[in-house]
Amino acid sequence: MLANFDGSNAQIQWQRFCDLLWYERDLGIWLDVSRMAIGQADLDALAPRFELAFAAMAALEGGAIANPDEQRQVGHYWLRTPELAPDAATTAHINAEVERIETFGREVLDGSLCAANGQPFTDVLWIGIGGSGLGPLLMVRALQEEGQGLPFHFFDNVDPAGMSRTLAGLDGRLATTLVVVVSKSGGTPEPHIGMEQAQARLEARGGQWAAQAVAVTMIDSKLDQVAVAGQWLRRFDMFDWVGGRTSITSAVGLLPAALVGADLRGFLAGAARMDALTRVSDLLHNPAALMAAAWFVAGHGQGKRDMVVLPYRDRLEVFSRYLQQLVMESLGKKHDRGGEVVHQGIAVYGNKGSTDQHAYVQQLRDGIDNFFVTFIEALEEPSDIPPIGDEIPGDFLDGFLQGTRSALMEGGRQSLSITLRRFDATALGALIALFERAVGLYAELVNVNAYDQPGVEAGKKAAALILALQERLEALLSDGQERSLQELQQALGTDSPESLFWILRHLCANPRGYQVTGDWGAPASMKFAKV
Amino acid sequence: MLANFDGSNAQIQWQRFCDLLWYERDLGIWLDVSRMAIGQADLDALAPRFELAFAAMAALEGGAIANPDEQRQVGHYWLRTPELAPDAATTAHINAEVERIETFGREVLDGSLCAANGQPFTDVLWIGIGGSGLGPLLMVRALQEEGQGLPFHFFDNVDPAGMSRTLAGLDGRLATTLVVVVSKSGGTPEPHIGMEQAQARLEARGGQWAAQAVAVTMIDSKLDQVAVAGQWLRRFDMFDWVGGRTSITSAVGLLPAALVGADLRGFLAGAARMDALTRVSDLLHNPAALMAAAWFVAGHGQGKRDMVVLPYRDRLEVFSRYLQQLVMESLGKKHDRGGEVVHQGIAVYGNKGSTDQHAYVQQLRDGIDNFFVTFIEALEEPSDIPPIGDEIPGDFLDGFLQGTRSALMEGGRQSLSITLRRFDATALGALIALFERAVGLYAELVNVNAYDQPGVEAGKKAAALILALQERLEALLSDGQERSLQELQQALGTDSPESLFWILRHLCANPRGYQVTGDWGAPASMKFAKV
Repeated sequence: MLANFDGSNAQIQWQRFCDLLWYERDLGIWLDVSRMAIGQADLDALAPRFELAFAAMAALEGGAIANPDEQRQVGHYWLRTPELAPDAATTAHINAEVERIETFGREVLDGSLCAANGQPFTDVLWIGIGGSGLGPLLMVRALQEEGQGLPFHFFDNVDPAGMSRTLAGLDGRLATTLVVVVSKSGGTPEPHIGMEQAQARLEARGGQWAAQAVAVTMIDSKLDQVAVAGQWLRRFDMFDWVGGRTSITSAVGLLPAALVGADLRGFLAGAARMDALTRVSDLLHNPAALMAAAWFVAGHGQGKRDMVVLPYRDRLEVFSRYLQQLVMESLGKKHDRGGEVVHQGIAVYGNKGSTDQHAYVQQLRDGIDNFFVTFIEALEEPSDIPPIGDEIPGDFLDGFLQGTRSALMEGGRQSLSITLRRFDATALGALIALFERAVGLYAELVNVNAYDQPGVEAGKKAAALILALQERLEALLSDGQERSLQELQQALGTDSPESLFWILRHLCANPRGYQVTGDWGAPASMKFAKV
Repeated sequence: MLANFDGSNAQIQWQRFCDLLWYERDLGIWLDVSRMAIGQADLDALAPRFELAFAAMAALEGGAIANPDEQRQVGHYWLRTPELAPDAATTAHINAEVERIETFGREVLDGSLCAANGQPFTDVLWIGIGGSGLGPLLMVRALQEEGQGLPFHFFDNVDPAGMSRTLAGLDGRLATTLVVVVSKSGGTPEPHIGMEQAQARLEARGGQWAAQAVAVTMIDSKLDQVAVAGQWLRRFDMFDWVGGRTSITSAVGLLPAALVGADLRGFLAGAARMDALTRVSDLLHNPAALMAAAWFVAGHGQGKRDMVVLPYRDRLEVFSRYLQQLVMESLGKKHDRGGEVVHQGIAVYGNKGSTDQHAYVQQLRDGIDNFFVTFIEALEEPSDIPPIGDEIPGDFLDGFLQGTRSALMEGGRQSLSITLRRFDATALGALIALFERAVGLYAELVNVNAYDQPGVEAGKKAAALILALQERLEALLSDGQERSLQELQQALGTDSPESLFWILRHLCANPRGYQVTGDWGAPASMKFAKV
């Protein structure tokens, strides 16, 4: 019988700590949810939902169509345990891709595969957005050792000023830069535009695109066709049944690991082991289920509390952002599976501890109680940071974490804690798999589909409408005639002049040949013409 | 008479857009709060509170004791308009410091000031946490041009693994690395520990600490005394009346600007100009007041909606984190000024657009309605990113922003937008001053003190208790005797064994000479001894 959360009673809290503590020796991972407000009544009430959730996860892993919108299977779990894939061909395909990635990385790093000019590759320009940018960024920031592997640079946006800066930083080394373009469908504008800009600049600096370009995409996608026709250096497969936010154990995460010389086999093994540990259908012995249950209770099953992620390790700073995508895109849904409007989700934010203590623990402790914290710590320290005087940096880091955890409990605020004996590729794989499973289970508890993203499509459509409107607007103004916003609206048949104002403000701030009269603070006074 | 927010009626929304649009020509900044749910009734209801808020801000700028906890004035506004300081000596002091910073930066960059080995400085290692780390990080990421100024590296944490990596990255250049230690009081453990580690490594690599070390601190602080005694290269002043989260227009932000060759005078001028614009006591013509009012209405004056910050510019990615600190540490308070328990605050998160669209706009559009978005865009584009085919990257970026803004409104979600004609140091100064003033005004609306941080002190105390407990625990175990957690608890008189378990878990994972028997998953089974 689990006692209820009582932050003011240390003995009860210690009993809860012992009752709820989950530990696994091989991975060296602890999970403590004793400072979340979960009680015996919650565990009992959630039990039937968890039965359904475990069954749903088993069906998903067995190859059910889990993303009905796109009529797709959801198979990221197969990536680290290929023998679980529903057929032998898929198992063989996964295994072969891992081998190819490993070999490619080794050849690039040992110089047996060189740029067209005969020089070893010096840099990687990684072009991908969403899971295709964030996963690789996490792998590199978390796992790269100083002086090992190639330095990574990212196009994870279409900001021209950002591209300009990244390309300027690579100037002089563009002919020895490996360019990886990641796009599952090949139809996403951001990587496509990034690719165009990278190719143009690289060729202007004497590079040979085909000898430096790598595609990560689905077989026979638009991008794949371009890569085949252009005889690119390599193509790696993004499987139809892997979504962007769970693609990190595919080539999307493994290729960066290989190119920074990280232990990609260990990464996969950590994820596989955690997958096995989180298939256990006894709630108290399944860390993903414990987390999902704790989230449910904290937010009343409606996301009423934000998840604040505080890894006390610089290498894990990107992990908070990674979870932001994994959790919010998976759970942030309008409808449940029955079609009811539910507006689900859990907001996620955080950077790293103890840095963030100085930024906003003031609010967490004293302010609005609309969150719970996820602490992540790693115990093992490097040997080259010695004690100085009596001061051991790792003791302070640990003290700050415990102090914050205590201060939160004193204020009645909830937290859960994940402790890693050692932070390495295996631990990272395990962490990712833990949260993937917790998100999958939580989605079942609240009965939403964790594997679609209809709202993203809506945003893409809205952006395409703006770009189409801009084209019509520019065509109209190409006659040189001066027009007010109202005249433009009438001519173009839009429902208000607002989008036109925004488009023209952007055009007029750049040398696109537009001329404006009137006051930018009074839109009705303005007239626009192409000169 | 302002019409009410109605996302389904384009004509009403356009009228609201025109009625609420704020624009300032010199700075080239627009603010649009028309898609926040603020109406005429709100404006009327808030008017008396704003009268008090404007008066309070005027008193603060005039030198009132605005932080009664520490009996301090709050003077960050004087930093960019020194003639506003309450006395001529302060004005002269501020002006002199700016000159000194400018001169120092120029001498470091042009090589007239060199390292002790006669070589020009190659790198900066910046040691500071909270505002002393985040402000400089923002300055560097936002304003550094490729190939200009020195590359920056940060100790913004006490993670030994992070320090190890940063120092490894500097190896070979440590003798030409300028080390800046920032600590207002000199008593904060993080910068102190970072300084110790940096000095030890630097000296082991042939550097000369005094010739490379710079202190940014209060006159006669502990750190200042060390710097004076050690004859450090330079000391710059942190004024008693400047808090960490509003220190970016002091040496904390100006020194990084100088060392990356950015326009620090422009930065100050932008902030000064925005300060003037946000002193206007007519709510509709004061952008900071418009923002504060919109925040108030969106969150019912209780922080019921999170602030999601999406700057559509890579250079501004850190700005979201900067605002996280500014807003949350200022507003996240337990008591109002009358001593009532209010648990105020506004949670802030975000990274950058359009990247974040792929991460979590799914939830923003479809999921839980517990937020409003702050869009930030910059119109002017660099000249070296050309159109390719028909595709202009900046048009896509603009389209994505507008598309997201539209998709949010369709879903009934609120947003406000800040548009900069050009992003540069002046614009950054203006942006920062805009949010500083909005936070100050909002704090007045909800009657909390924006300038203290009692919860941070509580966390520091709790951490110190853990470190003291560790010392007693290690002393006890130094006799070599084996003890259970219960025995340790009894001997040390703690209220539960929980902290002891956490401390010992950390000690045992490192080569500190501790030996353990029992199962790490069953604390009652364990015994610990020093060997």
